Parts: sequence; structure tokens; C-alpha cells
Amino acid sequence: MLTKAATSELSNLLGDRLSVSKSDLDAHGGSETHFAAAPPDAVAYPETTEEVSQLMKICHAHGVPVIGYGAGTSLEGHTSAIHGGLTVDFARMNRVLEVNQGDMDAVVQPGITREALNRDLRATGLFFSVDPGANASLGGMAATRASGTTTVRYGTMRENVLGLEVVMADGRVIRTGTRARKNSAGYDLTSLFLGSEGTLGLITELSLRLHGQPEAVSSGICAFERMEDAVEAVVAVIQMGLPMARIEFLDADAVRAVNAYSGTDVVEQPHLFVEFHGSDASVAEDAARFGEIVADFGASGVEVATKPEERTALWTMRHHAYWACLGLKKGATAVVTDVCVPISALAQAVEETRADIADSIIEGPILGHVGDGNFHAILLVDPGQPAELDVAKSLAARMNERALRLGGTVTGEHGIGIGKLAYMDAQHGHAWDVMSDIKMALDPQGILNPGKLTKPR
Amino acid sequence: MLTKAATSELSNLLGDRLSVSKSDLDAHGGSETHFAAAPPDAVAYPETTEEVSQLMKICHAHGVPVIGYGAGTSLEGHTSAIHGGLTVDFARMNRVLEVNQGDMDAVVQPGITREALNRDLRATGLFFSVDPGANASLGGMAATRASGTTTVRYGTMRENVLGLEVVMADGRVIRTGTRARKNSAGYDLTSLFLGSEGTLGLITELSLRLHGQPEAVSSGICAFERMEDAVEAVVAVIQMGLPMARIEFLDADAVRAVNAYSGTDVVEQPHLFVEFHGSDASVAEDAARFGEIVADFGASGVEVATKPEERTALWTMRHHAYWACLGLKKGATAVVTDVCVPISALAQAVEETRADIADSIIEGPILGHVGDGNFHAILLVDPGQPAELDVAKSLAARMNERALRLGGTVTGEHGIGIGKLAYMDAQHGHAWDVMSDIKMALDPQGILNPGKLTKPR
Repeated sequence: MLTKAATSELSNLLGDRLSVSKSDLDAHGGSETHFAAAPPDAVAYPETTEEVSQLMKICHAHGVPVIGYGAGTSLEGHTSAIHGGLTVDFARMNRVLEVNQGDMDAVVQPGITREALNRDLRATGLFFSVDPGANASLGGMAATRASGTTTVRYGTMRENVLGLEVVMADGRVIRTGTRARKNSAGYDLTSLFLGSEGTLGLITELSLRLHGQPEAVSSGICAFERMEDAVEAVVAVIQMGLPMARIEFLDADAVRAVNAYSGTDVVEQPHLFVEFHGSDASVAEDAARFGEIVADFGASGVEVATKPEERTALWTMRHHAYWACLGLKKGATAVVTDVCVPISALAQAVEETRADIADSIIEGPILGHVGDGNFHAILLVDPGQPAELDVAKSLAARMNERALRLGGTVTGEHGIGIGKLAYMDAQHGHAWDVMSDIKMALDPQGILNPGKLTKPR
Repeated sequence: MLTKAATSELSNLLGDRLSVSKSDLDAHGGSETHFAAAPPDAVAYPETTEEVSQLMKICHAHGVPVIGYGAGTSLEGHTSAIHGGLTVDFARMNRVLEVNQGDMDAVVQPGITREALNRDLRATGLFFSVDPGANASLGGMAATRASGTTTVRYGTMRENVLGLEVVMADGRVIRTGTRARKNSAGYDLTSLFLGSEGTLGLITELSLRLHGQPEAVSSGICAFERMEDAVEAVVAVIQMGLPMARIEFLDADAVRAVNAYSGTDVVEQPHLFVEFHGSDASVAEDAARFGEIVADFGASGVEVATKPEERTALWTMRHHAYWACLGLKKGATAVVTDVCVPISALAQAVEETRADIADSIIEGPILGHVGDGNFHAILLVDPGQPAELDVAKSLAARMNERALRLGGTVTGEHGIGIGKLAYMDAQHGHAWDVMSDIKMALDPQGILNPGKLTKPR
């Protein structure tokens, strides 16, 4: 709760960059998925780390909940202000502060989106690799330990963030990591804040690892008669050590959704969307080896896109898949799942999930970053039909239990938020207590994004 | 302090696997470098996680310090029992528990050494990549977030550990991470324990990422007239994005030491030792491109080793370099430094360090994993001459200050222990307080490896 006294102090600090307009509150209380709206009491738009530190001190003194906000693309209700309080929107802290070409790194503010960052980097020959599909903010991607289509080659946020500046619950400003490539100086606080979902501090600056733009890029798609063939082809490709830059799976329903949304005419069968990065020679060699492997699994309709505009069209199609799937059912919202399993268990996990959805009353296209063992079912529900939401939630529960049974995780990249809280105990046991002990040590009042990730107090 | 009551309980638990023999205590209280001996009161040799949990509960109940012990190869006094207590030697927990070839991972106990692990893996076509030179234990490598010669290609322990089993200060057993390749389920406890140097828990099991043995390997060395040319050649190679598997620097003194120790006759000039991994074609192409780049910096004497026995001889030479350097000065011990800087600052960091040592009364060969911006000066001192130790410590202090000034870290891979404690405040500021808060939350009695890494209480 934001008291009058706290509001007045925040207003003195931020002037008209503290908003209590209903439209602003509503815009920050929604969710991309099925969670009920939970708007904050006010929204702050700080412009400097010093302002973030000052507003944290005010909220700390008054016991006001504080929720960090980037682009609002998270999928597990991470930014819902379920206990009210102040949402801190980093839209105005969106600059690239440094690009160090020789060191292949950059220092950015948390509000910049990955697309804006890569536009800025274009002339340098470097790029930032983590690509969750949505045009997320870098601060949000760090807070959820995001990954995406290129992770199979370049890693998740964990592998691509060198250091952070963080404002702690009491307003102290700390720096973690350095710009050096390695660092053994004490606890790895960078990794601790990556994936902490705003519950341990607010990220105000990030040092990012960049990669050289590949000399040559080649993308392609291919179709399979049966879903299990597609998935088993992926397992074979990964186990052969082929250096895939992207290897994405879409089932027939997802392809149908994408066709309807993007006006394309891809044959409505299970597909792999792939990409190779390297030299002209290596890309051609990798694509040829890929073609040989997937042919063994009955792949057909192999189409290769080497022109930039064709590749862009292909990946735009993939990136819009979530909204395309929502379009399959009029007025639908979704329960989005995000399991990740060891690659040897991928075929079983996908097939059992597919069968389970087929036996239910709802639709649920499946797609995912299968090279990492990570896939999503987009479980489509009518928000006016609670029975459908119940069915979706039980399907999701069985997917999560299956993932744990197969040695995997209930979330490969979306995070916990409020949506996965119910699985933390099953996945972590005593380790969840340890997380909650750390939360208590660093945010004893529990004002940072309360109700998310750690044990309810 | 180990009380009689605690000793009796531990003895009931472990029988003759609790040792209080002087030779055992002395063997566990020493150090590879200049730190004074500090033996524990007893040494435990557990065989199971359950025993580790039980012994922790006993020590927790009696307030006894507990120090984890692997192969004893750490360089910053990590295992010194400076407050007495119980050293837990993991020598009997040294098994490979699982190798999952399809998933390219393995589950091992902490006491296994990296050489033993790779011998076990040989027939699988897989290998564990982290190579700190010394034949360290995997538990110790995890506890110090170790890295080494192949990190430029395959990463540090951070990138190669998927999950851990840890016994906490109160004896609870937790599991972090999963065998899945990605995981966004809550705080990254795996990363928190990696590099925690036994101050937050005892690692009793590790899930490790493995890599496919490369189809082709080619190693080589080349000499430079001037040290700065060698270092600048490295910077150029890294900035060109050449996929080096190893790129190691040895200055003329280090080469002289290695020749004397290994009976080789490498020309006593600054050298790079390099390695390429890939297909026959890519390795040849990479080596050729490397040759062209270093030629621009005046490289000469390029020798290529493609036969396994030649490569083994080359890397054995490099791995023995520390002991070779000690051999340069009769009866010497060493202050070993470990700075890591952004690659663009590497030439300046190395050159200023070289000049500083040259102006001093002591010798200090320089070598390092320069592809990561990480290098070591082995500062040689006569243990009977306190003045030399003082000189070495001031040289090390200036190296550390220089590294921080250049945006780097005081330790790239060795860790803090007791040797780098004095630099934690300068490197981390308030972030060191945050580390100490975490320590206090997870080990409120301060019994886990007391006096290391975190703020003295």
C-alpha cells in the first residue's frame, strides 16, 4: 500500500514522472497471459540510478511494495502488483552507455529493448544474441534469466551478462561482476540477480557480452509426417554436435496458426525452423549435414532462405507464433507452459504432452526451443469459461510433473512469477527454503515484488 | 575448536575414518604457496552424502569449524584451518555416478580429479573441458569457480556445471539445478555455490556438462622478440574471432624455467602456446589464419604438433610451469597473482606489471590464459627473507590495483581464500556487504570455512 506520506515524498522526487492515472495503472497491472489484472497504486518513471536509489529509500522507509517493470512481456504474472505498491517503469532508462568493440561488450540501461539494442549495434559488426521472441527489455530479460531461439548456440542471459548495477531494498547501490571475461572474486552475485525477478533488487545497469555478426547466415525449414520424427531428428542433430544457431519446433497446429496470422502457406505438418551461422563454407557444410540427418527421419519440403529479407520473414513468423496461436480461438487467453528436459527425454516429454492435450477439451499448439530440450504448449482457454481454465491448469500441472520426473525443470526460460509458485516445492524441496532465506536476508521487509518466486511468509 | 564431545560423536559416526594423526593434520594444513601452515584438529573421510550431512549436524551442534578439502591444489590458502576444526577430505567420494552420453553430461562425486574423470570418459567420445593445470578435484574446482587453459573456448566451471548436491551448515541436503540445459526456476543457487569456497555449504555431488572430443586437434608454439608483441598478437587473434581452444602466454623467464624443469630447449623468448579443435579442415584453416595474424607481430619459430604424444609433451610443459618457476630460485615459495582484465587492457596490464617486477629485487615469471585477459606473475621469494615477501606482496598489491583500475578483477580463477581478502572491499564495495549478508543467512554460526572470502565478523 502506498500511503499519502510516501506518495508525497515520491512526488517531490519525481514530479510528473510519478503517475497515478488510471490508464497508467491499468497498463502496468495486466498480463500477457491468463492472470487477473492487479494494478499498482502508482507508477514511477526514474531517469537515473540515483533516482531509483532515492525512491527505494522512500519505499523502504514506508514499507511500500516495489515492482520493477520493463516491456511487460513476461508470461507468469511477474509484474502484477498483487499487493499494490509502486511499479518502477524503466522506459526512460533505455540508453546504451558504452560499446567496447575491442572487448566485444556493451553497457546498457535496463529499459532498452533487445531490438533497439541490436539496431544500435548494427554498424559495429557485433550483436546481442539472446532472443526470447518478444521485444523484451534487457532489464526484464536479466530479471527472468531469459533465453530463446539462439540459446542453443550462444547461451542464455546467464552466459551473456558480465555484470550488473543493482539498487538493493534499502536503496544501496551495488555493482556485481566486472568487464573481464572471468572473475572468481567471491559469490557470483551477477548470477544471483539474474532470474531473481525483482525480488532481491532493481537492476539499473547491465554489462553485456556481445558476439561478432556471423560472416554467413543460412536459415531453413523442413516438414515431417509425424511429430515424433521431428523431435527425434532434433535429438540426433544435437547429439551429432552440429553447431546449430537456431533449431525450433512447431507442431501442425502451430503452423496452422502461423499461416492464418502471417498469411503464409507453409504445409500444415510438424516443422523445424533452423539457422546456421559461420563462414560461407561452414554454413553450407552444416546445412548439408543437417539435411542428411533429417532425411533419415523423413523430412521433406526443405526450403533454404539465404537472403536477409527471407530470413527476416521466417523468424518474424516464428516470433509472432504466440499471438498467432491466440488467434486460433476467438477471444482466447492462454496458459503458457515452459518445461525443459534433458534432450534424451525430449521425445517422450513432447509425445506424452501431445497425447494428453489431444484427450482434453481444449486446443494447445506446441512449439519450442527443442535444441535445448525446452518447449511450450500454448493452452488456449476462453476467459469466460472457468472449466477450460481448470482443464488447462491440470494439463500444465501434468506437463510440469512429467518434466520433473524426467530430470527437467518446470520453467526453462519464463521464470516463476506467480504462475509457477505452486511447483517450487516439488522442484526444489529444501533448496526453496534456502532461496527464501536469501530473500529474507536481502529484503527483510519483503517489499521487493512481494508474492513472487519465494515462499509466502 | 573441536571439543572432546564433538570428537567422540564424530568418531562414533566415522570410526577410523576420523583421523587425528599429526601427519594427516599437517598434510591438510599446508598450502601450495606462501601461507603459514594451519592444520585442523581432525580430518574426516566421509563416504556418503548422508555421512557428510551427519558430520555437519554434529559440528553445527558443537559450533565446530568445517573445511572442505579436495586435492589441496588451491593457491590462496583456501583450506587452511586458521580457526582449527574439522577438515572434510572428499578423497573417498571420488566416483563417477552416471554418464549420460545422449545428454552429454555426467554426475560425479566431489573427490574425483579432473584427470581421473577424463580417463573414465575416454571411451565415450566425450570429455570434461575445464583444465586448471593442476590435477584438482571437481569439488574444489567448483568451490573456487576454477577455469584454465581451455576456458577461452569451453568456459569456466560456471558454464560447465549444471547442478549440485550441497550439504548446508545445519546438515540439510539440497539439490540445485537439473540435468536440463536451461532452468529459470528461481534463484541460481548452482552459481551461488560455485566460487563460494566452502563458506556456504559442502558440495557432495556435481552434474557436469561434457563436450564431444574434437575430431581433430592441432597444437603449436611460436616465439616473439618482445613481450608486448606477443600480447598484442593475442588481442588481435581474439578480436578477429578466431575460435582458439587454448592460447597461453609464457614470458622469457617462464620459458627458461620450463626448459630447466622439463629438459626442453625452447628458445628463451616470450611465447604463445596454442591449440585448435575442430574438423581436419577447420583446424588447418584456423592454424593458417592464426599464423598470418601472428606473423604481423613478428612471430617466429612456429612449431606445430599434431601427434598426440607431441601435444601431450607441450601441455605437460605448460601444466608444470608453476613448479618449474619455483625451481628458478632454490628453496623458493611464491606469491601467485591472478588478475584478469578486459582484453583491450591486457597489453597495458602485462607491460606495466613486467616493468614493475623488473624494477624490484625479486624475480617473477609471467604466464597466463591471455585469451581471457587472465595472467599470473609467480613472484618468487625466499621464505627466510621477510623483506622479499614484503616486496612480493607490494608488487601483487599494485597488480591488483592496476587490474581494478582497468576494469578487471583481482582474481580470474584462483579465488579469494585468505590471500585476496584484503582486496574484497576495493573490488566490491557494498556488494561485499551483500555477500556477507548471504553468508550470515545461510551459516549464521560462521562454521563453514571461517575466515575466508566474507567480511570478518
